Amino acid sequence: MVIENLRRIHHIGITVRDVGRSVEFWRSFLGIEERWRQVLGAPYLGRVTGYPGVSIDVAIIDLPGGAVLEILDYQVDDKNPNPPETANPGNVHICIEVDDIEEMWDRAIRSGATPISPGPVEVTAGPNTGVKACYLRDPDGITLELFKPVGAGR
Amino acid sequence: MVIENLRRIHHIGITVRDVGRSVEFWRSFLGIEERWRQVLGAPYLGRVTGYPGVSIDVAIIDLPGGAVLEILDYQVDDKNPNPPETANPGNVHICIEVDDIEEMWDRAIRSGATPISPGPVEVTAGPNTGVKACYLRDPDGITLELFKPVGAGR
Repeated sequence: MVIENLRRIHHIGITVRDVGRSVEFWRSFLGIEERWRQVLGAPYLGRVTGYPGVSIDVAIIDLPGGAVLEILDYQVDDKNPNPPETANPGNVHICIEVDDIEEMWDRAIRSGATPISPGPVEVTAGPNTGVKACYLRDPDGITLELFKPVGAGR
Repeated sequence: MVIENLRRIHHIGITVRDVGRSVEFWRSFLGIEERWRQVLGAPYLGRVTGYPGVSIDVAIIDLPGGAVLEILDYQVDDKNPNPPETANPGNVHICIEVDDIEEMWDRAIRSGATPISPGPVEVTAGPNTGVKACYLRDPDGITLELFKPVGAGR
């Protein structure tokens, strides 16, 4: 049974234009400091990522619940920002469960996130009926969702 | 302290070209069946996502460790696949912690993933020194990482 070989989501990696700016965004948004930051350039890194010889500026943040957020800036010339639209195949969004979604929405906006929803919206269909949810975008256009379970917070 | 308002990563959402194909990929790769699938079109969905009136074909898979994988196909005409390169700002990759990384590498390839690394590679620097890691891409070019902690599996 393959499921016994699986543990959990270890991390989510986001590629950004400026690691320092992103670390500041996440610190302001979630109140969490970076645990570690370094420009990594050991040969294993190019083998793993498919960019031979690459160096990557990396910061690590410990998210609540055990998963890690890996913030990456590849030190290469050949790169183009992804468009932010979530309808595009290949897009990935990250959803954080919170107690007080109004507070976290306000904090995200104050930290520089771009609002996509008009604010937290009540879900009226599907397996999440009754929760509140909203979309915002981080400084690199990565979509973040906030999710308040039924009965949590306000 | 804002951290008390944060629970965990609730889900990771991936936008794909064909939900059925993706569900089959994840079933073959992880051995996990979809928990739920439906084309959602209630008005809240357009408000949350910023696509007024949108319908989205959605499947949900429960990943090990408690997070959910949300597989989405927006029923809109205006969409373009993201390029797969992880150096592009806005790219997001998903890392799954496993015990036997060689088995999961083989399963991913057999399930149709595209190998990026030559295979599992030993990490020789940074906070993950001693683990094994590798990158592959799903049928929509989304980068998946496998991660074997020090001392786990083989």
